[in-house]
Amino acid sequence: MGGASCGRARVGDVAAWIDAWAAPVAAEDVPLAEAAGRVLAAAVQAEADLPQLDRAAADGFALVADETMGAGAYNPLPFRLVPASAGVQPGHAVAVESGDPLPAGADAVVRLEHAAPDVPGIMAIIAPVAAGNEVERAGSHAARGGVLVAGGRRLGPGEIGLLGAADVARVSVVGRPRVRCLLAADRQPRATHDANGPMLAALVERDGGVMVGRRHVKRSRAVLRDALGSPEADIVLVAGGTGPGAGDTAAAALADTGELAIHGVALRPGETAGAGRAAAGGVPVFLLPGTPPACLWAYELLAGRAIRRLAGRSPTLPFATREMRLGRKIVSEIGMTEVCPVRCNADGQVEPLAPFTETGLVAAAEGDGFVIVPEASEGYPQGAPVTVHLYP
Amino acid sequence: MGGASCGRARVGDVAAWIDAWAAPVAAEDVPLAEAAGRVLAAAVQAEADLPQLDRAAADGFALVADETMGAGAYNPLPFRLVPASAGVQPGHAVAVESGDPLPAGADAVVRLEHAAPDVPGIMAIIAPVAAGNEVERAGSHAARGGVLVAGGRRLGPGEIGLLGAADVARVSVVGRPRVRCLLAADRQPRATHDANGPMLAALVERDGGVMVGRRHVKRSRAVLRDALGSPEADIVLVAGGTGPGAGDTAAAALADTGELAIHGVALRPGETAGAGRAAAGGVPVFLLPGTPPACLWAYELLAGRAIRRLAGRSPTLPFATREMRLGRKIVSEIGMTEVCPVRCNADGQVEPLAPFTETGLVAAAEGDGFVIVPEASEGYPQGAPVTVHLYP
Repeated sequence: MGGASCGRARVGDVAAWIDAWAAPVAAEDVPLAEAAGRVLAAAVQAEADLPQLDRAAADGFALVADETMGAGAYNPLPFRLVPASAGVQPGHAVAVESGDPLPAGADAVVRLEHAAPDVPGIMAIIAPVAAGNEVERAGSHAARGGVLVAGGRRLGPGEIGLLGAADVARVSVVGRPRVRCLLAADRQPRATHDANGPMLAALVERDGGVMVGRRHVKRSRAVLRDALGSPEADIVLVAGGTGPGAGDTAAAALADTGELAIHGVALRPGETAGAGRAAAGGVPVFLLPGTPPACLWAYELLAGRAIRRLAGRSPTLPFATREMRLGRKIVSEIGMTEVCPVRCNADGQVEPLAPFTETGLVAAAEGDGFVIVPEASEGYPQGAPVTVHLYP
Repeated sequence: MGGASCGRARVGDVAAWIDAWAAPVAAEDVPLAEAAGRVLAAAVQAEADLPQLDRAAADGFALVADETMGAGAYNPLPFRLVPASAGVQPGHAVAVESGDPLPAGADAVVRLEHAAPDVPGIMAIIAPVAAGNEVERAGSHAARGGVLVAGGRRLGPGEIGLLGAADVARVSVVGRPRVRCLLAADRQPRATHDANGPMLAALVERDGGVMVGRRHVKRSRAVLRDALGSPEADIVLVAGGTGPGAGDTAAAALADTGELAIHGVALRPGETAGAGRAAAGGVPVFLLPGTPPACLWAYELLAGRAIRRLAGRSPTLPFATREMRLGRKIVSEIGMTEVCPVRCNADGQVEPLAPFTETGLVAAAEGDGFVIVPEASEGYPQGAPVTVHLYP
């Protein structure tokens, strides 16, 4: 085990720290057409029955069900076609299409295929129906005052359609947490380019946040301290400058200006990550390592959890999971949460790829997903069942 | 079985019809920072080794590994600290941070915690290292000319970070298919509101398309024919007017102006759906029922497959799936593909909800996902294993 985990927070401890304060940001009203993917801030109730009126559920003829008794292919019963406005009197029927209000006096709809034209103005019915046949009753989807969509629900196409059908034009949704990103530049030229900026932008967008600022700053304690002094955001991400070296000043700058709650996490990649609060308003700050894979996984397991909570979403990792068997063993250090890139084989097994520490983000681009080996585990033998998080 | 499936296309037949023509639309160049979620049109190769130079993989001291032989807590070996520009001569070391280029002459990095300050300008090393320790070799992530990210890969945060690290500023991605939506208005006032417009906008956006136009048109054969005559899009969705009734004119209008390849699909909800091509340029057209749940599922199983293919994505339904056991039986009509809304129970079982035909999109908003019962099945008994498609 060695000294690698000494003094480091566990991933679960960081999650608990986040969960203690991270609540959805203030709600905002948006037009329904722009609400897809957002989280409802409160339940939406039906202002009227849905549907508001009894209506036809199929194309056909609205009539009185009792009058179709005995109808059949060898006993077609004639009905006089009248306009909907006339209402349905005995012996009459009204041509309707799916969704039309049920004409007054009618209690059922006979589908088109169970009717045959007779002389003009007369339709012959060739099958009996019961009252309510192919009729959607007023309030059968939702009763006035009932909950249409629960608070906290993420609005997918189905919810959007339902709210539109209920004539809801605007909805109150959890706001997008405003994220400011400080990319702490190197103290000297390096062989790496700006991977973290666009990567963090994609992550924040995916998790429901909005990047209100993303700038490169000098990796200097004074510069970072100044930048943290006016966060003007709901959360700040600092990428780079987290290590123990002399030029790695993010933690010192955060301690100067507010509170350094966590520095060093038993997470690989990502062990130099940290977190705390800027003094100004107590805005939460996450310190992410500058090495791209470490930045990615410190975001996913730590900062992302906070942003997802601020956005009203589930704090868990936003990946589908599947239980699979390992085609080859995974070795992990006890005391460290390790993220292991994997590929799914044709035979339904999952193979570990070379770790992020060896091949960087190539391991993400070539893989199908990842397996998280918790601190208490030293890995899994070949054939062991593991939970695979799958990239979309 | 009844006449319900007579003359209707099967869902699989429609999928085969789509797969015969639907290919990714033309590629476009976008800045890396805007490429998240897009599909790479062709493989991106590394223009240089990644990393370009040997570099430090940890904060510490770069030196010659052989010179640390015998170092230990009780045998600290002194090294003179020199600037990186001086290179590493015998007995010298250079302070480095993770990501720094390895100074000339050095072949390993000793981590900070395995060093202790001695007199000023001297660092004592207390653990031996092998050559290559904490060094990322040039080209170890990717070699110059090698594939960084494969063509057809959807760009997630990891791929974005990798391309950024390789100094890729712009990427060629599959274009967003342009979708035009015609909402065929009712021939008379109805009790439903515009559910389909915002719902389809959300679906198209989710599947990688861009809605270039969405307008209400009169449900008239002539008006629809005119609208289909100049689609100005990669695909057209017509919602409403698909039924067999006299006012349901979408299919007739499509037949007038181009080709009506399919009308009526053995899909519930969605059985009046259709598809074909507008004469102008052979632009594909999907006819979606006007009833919101039928519109939703005809999109998901039919039109959405085409849009996902045009966008270069996987044509399969974009939902995570899980194998679960049914807590209560599902009954389905043989010959129809039925979409059944379900809820996941605390005990890990899945319960069918009242069908879409009874409660409309409420069944989507209250559910956790859906089960698709194929044509050949009349449902599943309690306890049967089923594949559940889960909402995000």
